Amino acid sequence: MEARLVSRERVYLFDTTLRDGAQTQGVDFSVHDKTTMARALDALGIDYVEGGWPGANPTDSAFFAEAPRLERARLTAFGMTRRPGRSAENDPGLTAVLAAGTKAICLVGKTWDFHVATALGVSREENLDLIGSSLAAVVKRGAEALFDAEHFFDGYKADPGYALACLDAAVAGGARWVVLCDTNGGTLPEEVERIVGEAMRRVPAGRLAIHAHDDTGNAVANALAALRAGCRQIQGSLNGLGERCGNTNLVTVIPTLMLKAGYRDRYEIGVTPEALKGLTRASRLLDELLTRSPNRHAPYVGASAFAHKGGLHASAVAKDPTTYEHVPPESVGNVRQILVSDQAGRSNILAQLAGVGIDLAPDDARIGRLLSEVKEREFRGYTYDGADASFELLARRALGQVPEYFRVNSYRALVERRINAKGEEITLAEATVKVTVDGQLLMSVAEGNGPVSALDAALRKDLGKFSRFLEDLRLVDFRVRILNQGTGAVTRVMVESMDGRDRSWFTVGVSTNIVDASFQALYDAIVYKLYRDGAPAGEG
Amino acid sequence: MEARLVSRERVYLFDTTLRDGAQTQGVDFSVHDKTTMARALDALGIDYVEGGWPGANPTDSAFFAEAPRLERARLTAFGMTRRPGRSAENDPGLTAVLAAGTKAICLVGKTWDFHVATALGVSREENLDLIGSSLAAVVKRGAEALFDAEHFFDGYKADPGYALACLDAAVAGGARWVVLCDTNGGTLPEEVERIVGEAMRRVPAGRLAIHAHDDTGNAVANALAALRAGCRQIQGSLNGLGERCGNTNLVTVIPTLMLKAGYRDRYEIGVTPEALKGLTRASRLLDELLTRSPNRHAPYVGASAFAHKGGLHASAVAKDPTTYEHVPPESVGNVRQILVSDQAGRSNILAQLAGVGIDLAPDDARIGRLLSEVKEREFRGYTYDGADASFELLARRALGQVPEYFRVNSYRALVERRINAKGEEITLAEATVKVTVDGQLLMSVAEGNGPVSALDAALRKDLGKFSRFLEDLRLVDFRVRILNQGTGAVTRVMVESMDGRDRSWFTVGVSTNIVDASFQALYDAIVYKLYRDGAPAGEG
Repeated sequence: MEARLVSRERVYLFDTTLRDGAQTQGVDFSVHDKTTMARALDALGIDYVEGGWPGANPTDSAFFAEAPRLERARLTAFGMTRRPGRSAENDPGLTAVLAAGTKAICLVGKTWDFHVATALGVSREENLDLIGSSLAAVVKRGAEALFDAEHFFDGYKADPGYALACLDAAVAGGARWVVLCDTNGGTLPEEVERIVGEAMRRVPAGRLAIHAHDDTGNAVANALAALRAGCRQIQGSLNGLGERCGNTNLVTVIPTLMLKAGYRDRYEIGVTPEALKGLTRASRLLDELLTRSPNRHAPYVGASAFAHKGGLHASAVAKDPTTYEHVPPESVGNVRQILVSDQAGRSNILAQLAGVGIDLAPDDARIGRLLSEVKEREFRGYTYDGADASFELLARRALGQVPEYFRVNSYRALVERRINAKGEEITLAEATVKVTVDGQLLMSVAEGNGPVSALDAALRKDLGKFSRFLEDLRLVDFRVRILNQGTGAVTRVMVESMDGRDRSWFTVGVSTNIVDASFQALYDAIVYKLYRDGAPAGEG
Repeated sequence: MEARLVSRERVYLFDTTLRDGAQTQGVDFSVHDKTTMARALDALGIDYVEGGWPGANPTDSAFFAEAPRLERARLTAFGMTRRPGRSAENDPGLTAVLAAGTKAICLVGKTWDFHVATALGVSREENLDLIGSSLAAVVKRGAEALFDAEHFFDGYKADPGYALACLDAAVAGGARWVVLCDTNGGTLPEEVERIVGEAMRRVPAGRLAIHAHDDTGNAVANALAALRAGCRQIQGSLNGLGERCGNTNLVTVIPTLMLKAGYRDRYEIGVTPEALKGLTRASRLLDELLTRSPNRHAPYVGASAFAHKGGLHASAVAKDPTTYEHVPPESVGNVRQILVSDQAGRSNILAQLAGVGIDLAPDDARIGRLLSEVKEREFRGYTYDGADASFELLARRALGQVPEYFRVNSYRALVERRINAKGEEITLAEATVKVTVDGQLLMSVAEGNGPVSALDAALRKDLGKFSRFLEDLRLVDFRVRILNQGTGAVTRVMVESMDGRDRSWFTVGVSTNIVDASFQALYDAIVYKLYRDGAPAGEG
């Protein structure tokens, strides 16, 4: 056992969600999104986090200017080898990349003779010099140098000698890593294995990396084939985000490397078994930032990945999960789902109740009623998957444990755009709320950036004796999803709140009216805070 | 050339969309859906169409009772080997399957000793007899017999001798095909290749099939590995539909087999190059039946599969598509897309302009200004990736081609929740809009489900001479994305509109105020419609 562990080879993970992933159709990261994801990737145990291309666009420049400090991952900047006719010191694009101050820099260059001639328009020899001198500039700056060998597999098929000479030039220039990139994504696993084997005969051991795309549905298989052939760094992205069909999905590769004997016994990566339990959460976080629905059928982390229908499968799984599960769902932070059967529904609810600290006997009659209410509300568009606080309130209300602290008699939110006295176009948002606290009518009015922030401010402005419990409450996130298309559209709003003790909780509201859905979620957020802090109900 | 074609080996495709795919969470085919899909699969050139499990549920029984006549595909019924203690003639389940009258029948049986003992509760020898006698009954009925070897790969790892003995029993019983099933989906490509190689030493050539699942993201790679090792039938489903993470995606496998030299030169399948051009349509048809959004990033057929966003890529593709495309999109009935984005360069903008019918010379000075404006607006949160109409308006406004049809002087949106006269809680949304058309002030007020639909109604209620152009305009989709967290949150709204000629277009709005962002998108939607339909600007 000991001997086996000692002999495992270290394999590095390089994430390009924020660079290659940012080129995905419909993906548009803000600086804040990028910072959030970089921290999550660092916490997961990724070795290299590629943050973008400094100088290529305002978002990437802003991100690197205020780059997050990462615990263990190396923040990496992406750029291009110097342009023909420029020295490395005299190329504005390369200079911006070198100036970003990251620990590692990955430069892409040509290795396919056809592209050298048509895209760059330089001689084969000059391209070798572009590669070597650019990487030398990275080394001179003191950063770890990676060479992204664009079109390597197509280049190798067209002219193996020249493609390999490009790798030589990168190594001679000081590249720590040579990244074999299947840029067009058309290379198949058996070709990857063979060509990586050829490259291994030229590049010193432990310095080859693989960057695969999913255009034939083989991105994961290509990464594994390259690993078996000698690559020691795998590039990819969360959820396979990336141009066209996407990159190698690291969310799929990581558990395979850690849980499958053939890989686990030979290779070691920077992700701990404990961090692996955060994999499902990391995958969903990215979808949340992009307001995408998570892929139910994603390997390992999809909501359906461990879903079993009733009957034979379900009862066999109940006896011994290994009968129909290839790995334990909890190892990646996922959960088993037994579908359809009412029995399963009850045990799901019981588990959810226990999760929020409510312990009921399995035969408690109230469980059935709560289950029907949850099902009915989920049918209308509510979800309690991500809204723990709303679920807890729903359950405790059903159990008669939550008092009506205050009553909202009415509210009104107004948005107006008009020309002001100076002739400028201005937009205003104002909200009025009437509440009753201990029999006393209280009216408040407030302004905000929009109708929701105005309502939030008005609702909390004066809640009588409860106001002191809400001083440290703040709205930290607000997400909107439209559940149906067209005229019958229903809007679901999810609100994240936080208090002075850094506790955060999620509440949900559903309505055809987006303002009303928001109001429901805001209301639940306040009631939850009052309940948890033991605010005194009733008059007094 | 001739010699090469003659020597190609025939590989058969078996589709299980209507059986294994029907077990997917959330999938519920009607009889009509099944018939539609069976015909589409037949037209595509699939060899075997598995229609379901006769007798297992009313839909499947009804489907087989009125089975569609297929041109060339063999309709296949699925069932289970006879139950212990029953003869093949005396088992109601098996009898229903035999009676369905299909040309082929596939029976599933156990090959993992552990399952034989725990799930069936019979001896290893008796299980062999269940397999052999059940397949013999299929042969006796005159149908082509397939044996689905459940858990074969796990069974082989546990006890290779017994797993192979089960295959022997099936062949002895008369099975034309022995299907190696990776039921739990956890087997990796290199294991599949090795274990299929072992099975090849026992089963006569040309009789092994592979049935893989995507639980490690390797379903396609596993099918290809099995093919290389000797399997001559590939089972899978359209779009990879299936339990948990799904089956091998035939939509991905088919073009790989037909367009990639390593496979095209060695194997022949029943799909013609002409039928291949219907692949994208077949894939989308299934999504339509299931009212699912097609996966934009699906290999070969996804809307993004040939989308180019990076500036460098786009300019190279314009010169020569093979630089960044591994196969021609039209070969599978798909199309190329050039996107505008934060990453965009001049050539992207030029291509996008050409796409909306604006032809400018590459050195036109206005391109640089437009590019900066697009980048600046994208930094503020706009996106033109998915908002073609807003992009076209932005460009045409920059070129001075869009008149100000009407001016919005002001608007107001009000949301109110209160108790009505009957004591019921009601929510109202009302909007007022003041516009100037040809120097005339027009005021309108309208109600809606929420503030956005109220504004939409009020804005279109009276636009004077333009109203007649907007009669067939309707809002079909509305999406909201919050771009930053907390108090500085910016909201982006994307609106899809459609008119009576079934043309649809997308517009975008960005603001800290969700109602204002929506208003911008609604305004663009109307202006776009007026511009495209040639509404008369100016007084008159």
